[in-house]
Amino acid sequence: MENSNSSIEGNNLRVRKLELSDKSKGFLDLLRQLTVCDSVSDKEFEDRFKEISMYGDDHVICVIEDEISCKIIASGSVFIEKKFIRKCGKVGHIEDVVVDAGSRGMQLGKKIVGFLADHARSMGCYKVILDCSDENKVFYEKCGFKKKEVQMVKYFV
Amino acid sequence: MENSNSSIEGNNLRVRKLELSDKSKGFLDLLRQLTVCDSVSDKEFEDRFKEISMYGDDHVICVIEDEISCKIIASGSVFIEKKFIRKCGKVGHIEDVVVDAGSRGMQLGKKIVGFLADHARSMGCYKVILDCSDENKVFYEKCGFKKKEVQMVKYFV
Repeated sequence: MENSNSSIEGNNLRVRKLELSDKSKGFLDLLRQLTVCDSVSDKEFEDRFKEISMYGDDHVICVIEDEISCKIIASGSVFIEKKFIRKCGKVGHIEDVVVDAGSRGMQLGKKIVGFLADHARSMGCYKVILDCSDENKVFYEKCGFKKKEVQMVKYFV
Repeated sequence: MENSNSSIEGNNLRVRKLELSDKSKGFLDLLRQLTVCDSVSDKEFEDRFKEISMYGDDHVICVIEDEISCKIIASGSVFIEKKFIRKCGKVGHIEDVVVDAGSRGMQLGKKIVGFLADHARSMGCYKVILDCSDENKVFYEKCGFKKKEVQMVKYFV
């Protein structure tokens, strides 16, 4: 793992938008490190990819690829909510930020969150928000976020 | 206020989707009870209304109108986020729930939240989430929600 990491550090790791071919580069395996992420067929993946792409810049999923192993090692998403409050303002919602367990300590999470927040700002959002566990609070504080409210959830399944 | 409330209670108050003409029924005045909501021109309102309408069932704003005073007295919104996790699952995000200060105690908030959660469920979401202040936690618990995570925010303006 040490070798693999240092070879990655040698790369100029860049954040880019998700591509359809990222399914074969372990994108879903990476998401599985975040939460339940059952396998889906290529067709299901493509359909969802196209549905999200239809939103254009209003829903962006970004990834970092290790160009040596050709594996996706970090990801996150942001979508832009259009409101009437704040003079028809917009809010960016960051979701599903994850860094591969074997690729920690290289500031990849910070890169992903920075990319997503920059995107929200460039889209004219007055703020960007996200929900996280208590233990991840410190990480997001380092990314310039502050604790605001309480997240409430209602499960259907 | 008492009279006005009891006349409202006499109505069969129903939740319906936001209409363009609701701007002239005090929709923005209502949102102003929630947060900063500067005046916008009819054109700006219509443009934003159309932008949101383009999302169809993926972004719904609902209202309750007092049909005697022709004022919008409650509102809330939900948008449907499409994900890859949970077998290409979907999540409903509830935002901007507000009940007119003069129309409290009639379960309008519960009606709004119920409508939005039912919509998310009908769209195939596996959960619906929202962020609220500590003091509104009890209200959402009565609506069937549970505290989950911490909301973090980064302001751009």
